Amino acid sequence: MTKTNPGRFFEDYKVGQVIDHAVPRTVSGGERALYHALYPMRHALYSSDEFAKGCGLPAAPIDDLAAFHVVFGKTVPDVSLNAVANLGYAEGRWLKPVYAGDTLRSSSEVIGLKQNSNGKTGVVYVRTRGMNQRDEVVMEYVRWVMVRKRDVDAPAPEVVVPELSKVIDPKDLVIPEGLDFTNYDFTLAGEPHRFGDYEVGEVIGHVDGVTVEEAEHMMATRLWQNTAKVHFDATFRPDGQRLIYGGHVISMARALSFNGLANAQMIVGLNGGAHANPCFSGLTIKAWSEVLDKAETAAPGVGAIRLRLVAVSDASVGELKGEDGKYLPQVLLDLDYWALMPI
Amino acid sequence: MTKTNPGRFFEDYKVGQVIDHAVPRTVSGGERALYHALYPMRHALYSSDEFAKGCGLPAAPIDDLAAFHVVFGKTVPDVSLNAVANLGYAEGRWLKPVYAGDTLRSSSEVIGLKQNSNGKTGVVYVRTRGMNQRDEVVMEYVRWVMVRKRDVDAPAPEVVVPELSKVIDPKDLVIPEGLDFTNYDFTLAGEPHRFGDYEVGEVIGHVDGVTVEEAEHMMATRLWQNTAKVHFDATFRPDGQRLIYGGHVISMARALSFNGLANAQMIVGLNGGAHANPCFSGLTIKAWSEVLDKAETAAPGVGAIRLRLVAVSDASVGELKGEDGKYLPQVLLDLDYWALMPI
Amino acid sequence: MTKTNPGRFFEDYKVGQVIDHAVPRTVSGGERALYHALYPMRHALYSSDEFAKGCGLPAAPIDDLAAFHVVFGKTVPDVSLNAVANLGYAEGRWLKPVYAGDTLRSSSEVIGLKQNSNGKTGVVYVRTRGMNQRDEVVMEYVRWVMVRKRDVDAPAPEVVVPELSKVIDPKDLVIPEGLDFTNYDFTLAGEPHRFGDYEVGEVIGHVDGVTVEEAEHMMATRLWQNTAKVHFDATFRPDGQRLIYGGHVISMARALSFNGLANAQMIVGLNGGAHANPCFSGLTIKAWSEVLDKAETAAPGVGAIRLRLVAVSDASVGELKGEDGKYLPQVLLDLDYWALMPI
Repeated sequence: MTKTNPGRFFEDYKVGQVIDHAVPRTVSGGERALYHALYPMRHALYSSDEFAKGCGLPAAPIDDLAAFHVVFGKTVPDVSLNAVANLGYAEGRWLKPVYAGDTLRSSSEVIGLKQNSNGKTGVVYVRTRGMNQRDEVVMEYVRWVMVRKRDVDAPAPEVVVPELSKVIDPKDLVIPEGLDFTNYDFTLAGEPHRFGDYEVGEVIGHVDGVTVEEAEHMMATRLWQNTAKVHFDATFRPDGQRLIYGGHVISMARALSFNGLANAQMIVGLNGGAHANPCFSGLTIKAWSEVLDKAETAAPGVGAIRLRLVAVSDASVGELKGEDGKYLPQVLLDLDYWALMPI
Repeated sequence: MTKTNPGRFFEDYKVGQVIDHAVPRTVSGGERALYHALYPMRHALYSSDEFAKGCGLPAAPIDDLAAFHVVFGKTVPDVSLNAVANLGYAEGRWLKPVYAGDTLRSSSEVIGLKQNSNGKTGVVYVRTRGMNQRDEVVMEYVRWVMVRKRDVDAPAPEVVVPELSKVIDPKDLVIPEGLDFTNYDFTLAGEPHRFGDYEVGEVIGHVDGVTVEEAEHMMATRLWQNTAKVHFDATFRPDGQRLIYGGHVISMARALSFNGLANAQMIVGLNGGAHANPCFSGLTIKAWSEVLDKAETAAPGVGAIRLRLVAVSDASVGELKGEDGKYLPQVLLDLDYWALMPI
Repeated sequence: MTKTNPGRFFEDYKVGQVIDHAVPRTVSGGERALYHALYPMRHALYSSDEFAKGCGLPAAPIDDLAAFHVVFGKTVPDVSLNAVANLGYAEGRWLKPVYAGDTLRSSSEVIGLKQNSNGKTGVVYVRTRGMNQRDEVVMEYVRWVMVRKRDVDAPAPEVVVPELSKVIDPKDLVIPEGLDFTNYDFTLAGEPHRFGDYEVGEVIGHVDGVTVEEAEHMMATRLWQNTAKVHFDATFRPDGQRLIYGGHVISMARALSFNGLANAQMIVGLNGGAHANPCFSGLTIKAWSEVLDKAETAAPGVGAIRLRLVAVSDASVGELKGEDGKYLPQVLLDLDYWALMPI
């Protein structure tokens, strides 16, 4: 009997099944420093304990997307080791900030299954939750992936496709306890633009770009304990390239969006996302954003802004899909999220 | 008089000489995060404070091999700056876990000397100890290296070759105080295989591979304050390549061995090891293991498993030496160690 | 209206203007570990809490140049985004050690302006201060940069060129409170050479070299939240090269200078500095130093040594400028600083 993990195949999943993922992780200032070395992160609330205290939090949390990557990374050996494609995200919510010293683990529930007509693959829908050492859920999201079947002749399961919100209702966003932007320091945050300065439909080109390197994306992906071979092993693909973890592109684009969205401080909702084209070492990532919606929140001085974040491998701004409805070749990522911003 | 360190030559060593190595080092969560970014480390006991507490320890220690690298790195300016080859290891034992906040320093005693018949080099045997800030020995090991003579005409010293154990008697392994695997969580650890599931002679191919990059091995080697020029300076070798620190290969192979040996949690003994062939940037490291022995311990629920860990630059499993008794060209490392595993 | 930061142009600066820079930063053991992974830092006082305590400090501070980079990085979006050249440094002093847990922010005062005769650019002089969370100034320095004009027809400002000390008077150096080298441990520090062993005029070639990689300089530069595009975006320059942040060369040279100057523990003064030639990935950095001056201090056992630190891209030692008075092509950096050394 082999002792190595072959990963689950499509017929191994059952609706209602709960998978507790392995390898809990205690995060520290080390993870934060690495995150800020790997991406040009500058959002003040995640950079400075003093700034976070000025916003009503006990200290600067670990970056929201770093928490996401830790939670996500644990699911890879159980969910996507035999995945052909990562198809989408929905209903992602950050429920509790994560602080240095917290220990995170993840658990996923299978909420949908649909075999593809070719009989060789199927789509698996999971709702993943990340928990801290007090068993508090710190974040949750739905992801669906296309997974190979082990045995093409295995019978197709009953089709269950979950109903997923296209957009999280802003009333369902969870604002961190104590968050208060009434004394927000725009000078220290880096930009004067507040909630009222952004208009729905507005498009912002973020100007800066970063050329990505093999050593960087591998260090990032390992830090999240993501084990997918294709990110690390140059002999795995016939072309000798290492596919960059989609989350690396998410974090790079989010960091680049500081220039124009410095006050979109905290990500609290992930409405959806697509890794439109693969990313490889040597590409220069740039980003642009579009304001999709705005909403008030109950927290003092805090508004919620819904943003489309697009990562591209050229300098284009505002162009997403071609006439055929497909993503343009330069588009690497199309992400739809809610962030909190001072009013 | 030059103030730079030329390193010691063979005739500078005397049996019985004790060398206190420079540059003590306080380790933190930063070293841990970097270690986990540089290698795909997933052993739960070193990843999660909560998991470690569930095993009777006060917190997750710094990875056993990271502690080894810190101790080893300090010896390089005194022991191997003029080394031609790193010949072997023996009698390595981890005696106390190292925790964030601990400060490590190293000291070596010369325990053997043997000039080579060519009169130009000699073999130096040292027993190195790493101490924490309470002067507790946290680990010790014997290493022997081939060192150049400064003056070929210097007289040969009396030959002293220490008697070294081929294998550490399992009774001499030191189990960390409080370690208790009776409530070990196999789900969080990542694999169900326990002590009883492994058979002596069993060979495990660890499947995953990592292509190594210059930036990564240099960052790792600097983190351990290892100063050997050949790892950093591309102008040092005629072929313009930087030789990768052997310890980088050890840590990479150990991390890769998680897949199949997730429950070989703590390394407590190093019986021997050979850097069979040099490793350079661009190679893809894979690994396989062989179960060499098993032994009981006095700690509750804790068994000791003796493993051969082999790093290779191709996908071969189980092939070590050719008919001529020499290591095959794809073999980078042949390591023999004791680890602790839940019964 | 664009929301991205276009940076200030020459005509945007007024003498007396104070700019509070954005994005305060809490530093931790993570920043220290990364700094020691990116550069071969070995100065014991910054490596070991125990060694620092033995010198009268509460713990090992964050490396002096790491503190400088954090303070400097914050100024880039306000001072040098449209800079053509970084012309010089003067009157730099470290006033308080920075410890893990401290939060740093920066502020700059414009102290001089001089339009160039071509009418297209001008020189801006700023005095920058870094403050911790207790509003204590941890360091200050003067920097002058050549900045483009937005509008060539904008009127030239009144010429104000500040009088700057060529060298900081050693009486004005600030010795960290409590610093005491009377029980200094030369063995743990790594070299026996004390203050009295160095002679003014002495030149030390530091022997070691490090070949620099894109991933490393970008990680370093991001860690300091330095946003200058030219360091990250390979599409920014016509030749496709990323210019390495000058501070990366400073830190690399300082780390290399350990070999021969291990006891030049703390940098307390920056008299001047020039980035003589640009540095790109693939170059191998080596370094040499010249003793420029020596002075006593009031602290027990502590002397101040003034050093020229030169980074070069070949193995030359002691050669700085050609007959034309210009820096030789291999010279990357010419830095003039005061350090503290045991007497």
